[in-house]
Amino acid sequence: MTISDKIWTAGLVIIGDEILSGRTHDKNIAQVASWLQVQGIRLAEVRVVADDEDRIVEAVNALRSSNDYLFTTGGIGPTHDDITVDAVAKALGVPVIIHPEARALLERYYADKGGVNEGRLRMARVPEGAELIPNRMSGAPGIQRGNLFLMAGVPHITAGMLDALTGKLEGGAPLISETVGGFIPESEVAGLLREVEQAHENCQIGSYPFFRDGKVGSNFVIRSTDREDLQSCYDSLCEGLGENGWDFTPGGI
Amino acid sequence: MTISDKIWTAGLVIIGDEILSGRTHDKNIAQVASWLQVQGIRLAEVRVVADDEDRIVEAVNALRSSNDYLFTTGGIGPTHDDITVDAVAKALGVPVIIHPEARALLERYYADKGGVNEGRLRMARVPEGAELIPNRMSGAPGIQRGNLFLMAGVPHITAGMLDALTGKLEGGAPLISETVGGFIPESEVAGLLREVEQAHENCQIGSYPFFRDGKVGSNFVIRSTDREDLQSCYDSLCEGLGENGWDFTPGGI
Repeated sequence: MTISDKIWTAGLVIIGDEILSGRTHDKNIAQVASWLQVQGIRLAEVRVVADDEDRIVEAVNALRSSNDYLFTTGGIGPTHDDITVDAVAKALGVPVIIHPEARALLERYYADKGGVNEGRLRMARVPEGAELIPNRMSGAPGIQRGNLFLMAGVPHITAGMLDALTGKLEGGAPLISETVGGFIPESEVAGLLREVEQAHENCQIGSYPFFRDGKVGSNFVIRSTDREDLQSCYDSLCEGLGENGWDFTPGGI
Repeated sequence: MTISDKIWTAGLVIIGDEILSGRTHDKNIAQVASWLQVQGIRLAEVRVVADDEDRIVEAVNALRSSNDYLFTTGGIGPTHDDITVDAVAKALGVPVIIHPEARALLERYYADKGGVNEGRLRMARVPEGAELIPNRMSGAPGIQRGNLFLMAGVPHITAGMLDALTGKLEGGAPLISETVGGFIPESEVAGLLREVEQAHENCQIGSYPFFRDGKVGSNFVIRSTDREDLQSCYDSLCEGLGENGWDFTPGGI
């Protein structure tokens, strides 16, 4: 494996009681995952933990030691349940400080909204040694410290922070994919999928069943970092499906 | 704390490359979380891992040792990427066997669909000592072994399996909640939220900001297992918001 073949990975910690209670449907896993793909970084694991310092410390330490990058969403707002900064500082073994630039940002943002109070000042707190991630949606910035990125929980604010980071992280070859699908029960082509995958060592094939209009179907997604291998695997799979008499659809259905 | 005060917890492991790639938006976290609430069981942590045996084993062992129950979704279908049963059997240190009742179910289900082939027979494989969870949507059952529950990844099949388990798991007092919201920036009431929560030790208050019609707002969710404490906390919060001149809405907005 040459240097350029290195696979860059990231972990993601979603922080929030509201996800674990079922009240809020998470949108950040898919959003961060899709964004990472484009940066050439693979999302290796996600953990969803409660607003509990020990749980956050444990998840952050586990995923930062096993990945190149670690992202968190949630818990960086102004209220008492926003404890991500404290937990991450504890995980890193550094103190929490008021970031002067963040304080200045908040003072400007809240100048005509009643000024910076105690709660608002919480949003200027960062683990020592951190830089800010711009937030063009609201006053409070995200926080970067080395390979750790602390982002907002509200999905469209998270999106803005990801946007600010686009192209700035070192990654590898993006994982590319081709999909083919049809009203094909996956259980009838399990052998074919396995054979085709084994014949193309740089490709993985995922099989995703669905039910639509009362009929059983599947989408087969081939993933690879090599466009040529991907095409060859895709051609073999289409050929195999065709030989079995299946009516399939490039791009999936 | 009496026996009846025991807090029952569950872990959830979501298995699937398709979630980590961003291709599929997870719906099972919210679905399992909401279902658990009604059973009086709290979802303590979720991990999303790839279709990789070592990762699944690690996540299953970590979450089953720290919780009363462990649920998994995904990876119990007929194809080569369905490895949940093998990984869970490895985590438990037991062999994988063909469950006779599952085999009979599949033989009946596929009798007029070409019969049971090698791929389909995979769906009768269970860790030794397991029972089946009925699946009224398709042929393949879910799997229960002690406090472990292996369910499908396709959300409406998962829903059917949860339905079959409703009322069968021992739990504690369900966590109940009240919500109050308004076009109130959370940063203006952070102090009030903290004070009200501290005055009601059996209640947690979560603050969830939103942006709508160009305006900033928040919903405040109070959670407790005690209806009386919940009501008292709710009344205090409404009183506090009212004293500050906020126009708030019971039930949230």
